[in-house]
Amino acid sequence: MKKIGVLTSGGDAPGMNAAIRSVVRCAICKGLEVAGIFRGYEGLIQADIKPLNHRSVSNILSRGGTILKTSRSEAFMTEEGQRRAVEVIKTNRIDGLVIIGGNGSYAGALALSKKWLIPCVGIPGTIDNDVNCTDFTIGSDTALDTALGAIDKIRDTITSLERIFIVEVMGRQCGYIALNVALAAGAEQVLIPERAYDISQMCQEITEGYIRGKASWLIIVAEGVIKAHELGEKITQCTELETRHVVLGHIQRGGSPTSKDRILATTLGAEAVNALIKGESGVAIGIEGEEIRIAPLEEAITKKVLKTERIYNLIKTMS
Amino acid sequence: MKKIGVLTSGGDAPGMNAAIRSVVRCAICKGLEVAGIFRGYEGLIQADIKPLNHRSVSNILSRGGTILKTSRSEAFMTEEGQRRAVEVIKTNRIDGLVIIGGNGSYAGALALSKKWLIPCVGIPGTIDNDVNCTDFTIGSDTALDTALGAIDKIRDTITSLERIFIVEVMGRQCGYIALNVALAAGAEQVLIPERAYDISQMCQEITEGYIRGKASWLIIVAEGVIKAHELGEKITQCTELETRHVVLGHIQRGGSPTSKDRILATTLGAEAVNALIKGESGVAIGIEGEEIRIAPLEEAITKKVLKTERIYNLIKTMS
Amino acid sequence: MKKIGVLTSGGDAPGMNAAIRSVVRCAICKGLEVAGIFRGYEGLIQADIKPLNHRSVSNILSRGGTILKTSRSEAFMTEEGQRRAVEVIKTNRIDGLVIIGGNGSYAGALALSKKWLIPCVGIPGTIDNDVNCTDFTIGSDTALDTALGAIDKIRDTITSLERIFIVEVMGRQCGYIALNVALAAGAEQVLIPERAYDISQMCQEITEGYIRGKASWLIIVAEGVIKAHELGEKITQCTELETRHVVLGHIQRGGSPTSKDRILATTLGAEAVNALIKGESGVAIGIEGEEIRIAPLEEAITKKVLKTERIYNLIKTMS
Amino acid sequence: MKKIGVLTSGGDAPGMNAAIRSVVRCAICKGLEVAGIFRGYEGLIQADIKPLNHRSVSNILSRGGTILKTSRSEAFMTEEGQRRAVEVIKTNRIDGLVIIGGNGSYAGALALSKKWLIPCVGIPGTIDNDVNCTDFTIGSDTALDTALGAIDKIRDTITSLERIFIVEVMGRQCGYIALNVALAAGAEQVLIPERAYDISQMCQEITEGYIRGKASWLIIVAEGVIKAHELGEKITQCTELETRHVVLGHIQRGGSPTSKDRILATTLGAEAVNALIKGESGVAIGIEGEEIRIAPLEEAITKKVLKTERIYNLIKTMS
Repeated sequence: MKKIGVLTSGGDAPGMNAAIRSVVRCAICKGLEVAGIFRGYEGLIQADIKPLNHRSVSNILSRGGTILKTSRSEAFMTEEGQRRAVEVIKTNRIDGLVIIGGNGSYAGALALSKKWLIPCVGIPGTIDNDVNCTDFTIGSDTALDTALGAIDKIRDTITSLERIFIVEVMGRQCGYIALNVALAAGAEQVLIPERAYDISQMCQEITEGYIRGKASWLIIVAEGVIKAHELGEKITQCTELETRHVVLGHIQRGGSPTSKDRILATTLGAEAVNALIKGESGVAIGIEGEEIRIAPLEEAITKKVLKTERIYNLIKTMS
Repeated sequence: MKKIGVLTSGGDAPGMNAAIRSVVRCAICKGLEVAGIFRGYEGLIQADIKPLNHRSVSNILSRGGTILKTSRSEAFMTEEGQRRAVEVIKTNRIDGLVIIGGNGSYAGALALSKKWLIPCVGIPGTIDNDVNCTDFTIGSDTALDTALGAIDKIRDTITSLERIFIVEVMGRQCGYIALNVALAAGAEQVLIPERAYDISQMCQEITEGYIRGKASWLIIVAEGVIKAHELGEKITQCTELETRHVVLGHIQRGGSPTSKDRILATTLGAEAVNALIKGESGVAIGIEGEEIRIAPLEEAITKKVLKTERIYNLIKTMS
Repeated sequence: MKKIGVLTSGGDAPGMNAAIRSVVRCAICKGLEVAGIFRGYEGLIQADIKPLNHRSVSNILSRGGTILKTSRSEAFMTEEGQRRAVEVIKTNRIDGLVIIGGNGSYAGALALSKKWLIPCVGIPGTIDNDVNCTDFTIGSDTALDTALGAIDKIRDTITSLERIFIVEVMGRQCGYIALNVALAAGAEQVLIPERAYDISQMCQEITEGYIRGKASWLIIVAEGVIKAHELGEKITQCTELETRHVVLGHIQRGGSPTSKDRILATTLGAEAVNALIKGESGVAIGIEGEEIRIAPLEEAITKKVLKTERIYNLIKTMS
Repeated sequence: MKKIGVLTSGGDAPGMNAAIRSVVRCAICKGLEVAGIFRGYEGLIQADIKPLNHRSVSNILSRGGTILKTSRSEAFMTEEGQRRAVEVIKTNRIDGLVIIGGNGSYAGALALSKKWLIPCVGIPGTIDNDVNCTDFTIGSDTALDTALGAIDKIRDTITSLERIFIVEVMGRQCGYIALNVALAAGAEQVLIPERAYDISQMCQEITEGYIRGKASWLIIVAEGVIKAHELGEKITQCTELETRHVVLGHIQRGGSPTSKDRILATTLGAEAVNALIKGESGVAIGIEGEEIRIAPLEEAITKKVLKTERIYNLIKTMS
């Protein structure tokens, strides 16, 4: 192994740059060359590639986003697209790939490694923390703190105006951010894809609370469950109380990564290079407790089951 | 003058607590008692009043929101509501009022002072910076920095994904936040109520930019101009390029105030007490340059004209 | 068990308020009364106690410090002091105690539970992360991010001025903060109590770097190893290069807790109440991986061994 | 005028990058070329120069420090050094210079313009806000907010531990940061170079406060007055109370600039280019109220007098 490629794919996540930096510096330290592949699989197909050295990744550790840019590639989902990608890999004498991204990115890595026999190692980079075989994905800690910081600000208004506020956070199929930020922000209610919810029950609690003088409510909802404004309208219909809603949206993807995300990214980046050097392929690197875990991509790609019981009950107890 | 009342009204703004603290401590220092009126004019009508002392306002200087809570009172817009408010003021032996809020709150203060002869002094507390006879309102500096911090995070994704992003900021009739944050964030375009805009012209620029390789755009829009998602749809129709939108919403109202807002709030709070003691009524306290300005509420309440030329041109030059 | 007491002791840590809130609300939820003991063991001896209810702990979740205040009590280290404390406990009909603090606080809890047979449960609250039988202590995640934020700012000047900067972080006997923040901030060197260091070797690297054009250095040092200004003087003597130093100091103890610290504090607070109810005493609550761990205070109090190898090597590889 | 040079000199300040970006983009917009001079006057002497274009300054608006790096040049204080600098300017066909820095940097600009007849325009970039002919210098707003953020964290511990804390902020000859942050942070005392202070009087107040139960004190001191640890020792000697001290140091120089600093920097950068084009030389650009002010460097360089009365009295009233 003389040269490895690195790319970021899917939605960007804070800490992706820290992972790139780690891959580059660790590889160079081990005597490898590094090819930076821009714009994910799309750039791989189009041979949008530049060599990266130690200095290329100076001053990126603290920055959100990804200097390699990212995309979702439809072309790469086709046989033809993958064939072209493989040609580019060979033409550029790339001996192995580190792929930083979420489940969709892992699916691409799986195809490249299994079908086209390109050595590929995945690193979990997504704010959603919905990748299996790892306790945490790169970016999820930062996204939580960003959402929390925003909700703390909204809380000032909730308390001052005494209103019902609904805050929609990211998470189409996974309630990780919603559940955790609800506990951290002291929310009264949380709606996540993993648990059934009962709006009329919630409205009854709101009405009862209102009667005994509780007029401030913070309800967190994961985007995959119901749109914030729809939930607000239903609550107003049922309780005759005004509601306000905020959709946090893309602010959750950006920002300077937390120490935890930088350390995780640096750790996993280095381990990915080590794994490639050791001849691993078709695997994903993760962390469980204090231990590094190397798992088959097939397993990492299966749906992660979020344990919700303990945190959900705590939210109820605290509110 | 033996006892003054203080209330916050309208939307909450960071620094309102700093202003309350200043009013209370300055008044006590001058030998006055202070009555804290809760929930704005609504609480005044309902006699929701508690005495405040030096310690009541400990540890609030750094906090967003208002410990006095706030509201928009419909009752107070009626003659009957105002009459009841005046009775409450007299029953509680309140000799003068400090009112912290925006134009709507000033209108209430004007009625109380002119029609009902209650000594009233206003302090401008609103994130919109749309109050006349002052360079800045309490909360506007913090709101700008909050919006900027959020947009800086979104910029990470704009750059990584190379997309057109539309960010909607607060400002129904005033483009202050939009204009300033657009310059501070390095936006390519800004839409504000004070200036006409031309979507087809904008789309042409986007298309031309796209052809020469510029795929990342940040467009800031004040909420009063057009909804972010509508603008996005129009741009997509016209350019066939994908857009994303974020509505920053209520995060702009909260958070710990900046040093500038705390200093402004503390300064204006003290001057309001001084003005009441000197026998002023029906006036608003503001700051122009380094100087305190005391202006009639009638004048403060007139529409503030935002100078847009220099900043707008700078945005164009920088993009 | 009808009434429990809760106190914070030792240095304050972000998240202590979240833990207090959790203890109070969880206890009330289970039908218990809660006595808030102020100023740690000192306040216990002096019977500085007030009842806490659900509303007493509103709006404290996001705040640094501890509403119960804290202290280091010399009186409590004496038999006489402990005897008085026990009397106060009995007089106030307190059936069990939750103690939030570090190793010193645990020692007090151990004495109370073993010698005086007062049911006591400890929760690890200290920024140093030097308490055994838990992966993390409450406050350590926030302290890391605070230190990182400060160092990121210093990095701007390091890069602009091209200087050697030495940053001293907290950690008298434990290099946890220093080691982790060094990796997260991309430091070139780190000095921690757990590892020997060689200044002449370091100076040689600095000199060699200087010759090949590397003039910016960030060196992190734990306070227990060497004072930052002394290290700076030694480096200047040896390399003839200017150095600058910053001692981060007490900013590392304060601030709004991160989501991780709030979740940890809320979780451990609830588990402490559960443990008391179940009849546990002389134990400390901790978290290992995703699991709650209940360990004897004797074990929790033993010196925690920090694993340094992997992170230290990563710092070297990245620099 | 076909080509202008731009350099940053002296201590770095947040917003310098925003000013560089503005100079570059404004100059290019007007058809000029731009030479970036690295490491201030030192780099000018050594011809450390690279052309800058529109893209060179992408993504720097939000960053602290200066991409042009900075230094304090002893060589440039000599006739010989200046002569070499002038040669470099001529050899590189640079027709005018924009100099971003504080009083020392302005002195250099004055020499170049008056003695060597090089067209020079200064922009005030320093956190100290000690440059004349402008209300604000670039970086001072950010430095205030950074100091405030750090002190807010320390306040958590002050309140929790009930101690006397002394915080030393930047300002060798100017109390601007100390005075303003003391008001914004709610400090009990402030020591600045512009005002005499009386330690025994202060100690008497502390002792009297201690007797009536006030144990928490925050004292802000500008670095030019007395070292924080010395002040702490004197207070302890006099009052027999423990003190703690923190020296904020270089964290005050870095960090992402506030919106106000970015807007100021962008405005002044553009005006500097305009001034050069109009044939101005030996002048400094500043802002007074809402107006741009162009003043002779001789005047800008004279000692700025800080008005302290109003804020100092407010601090006393509030504490």
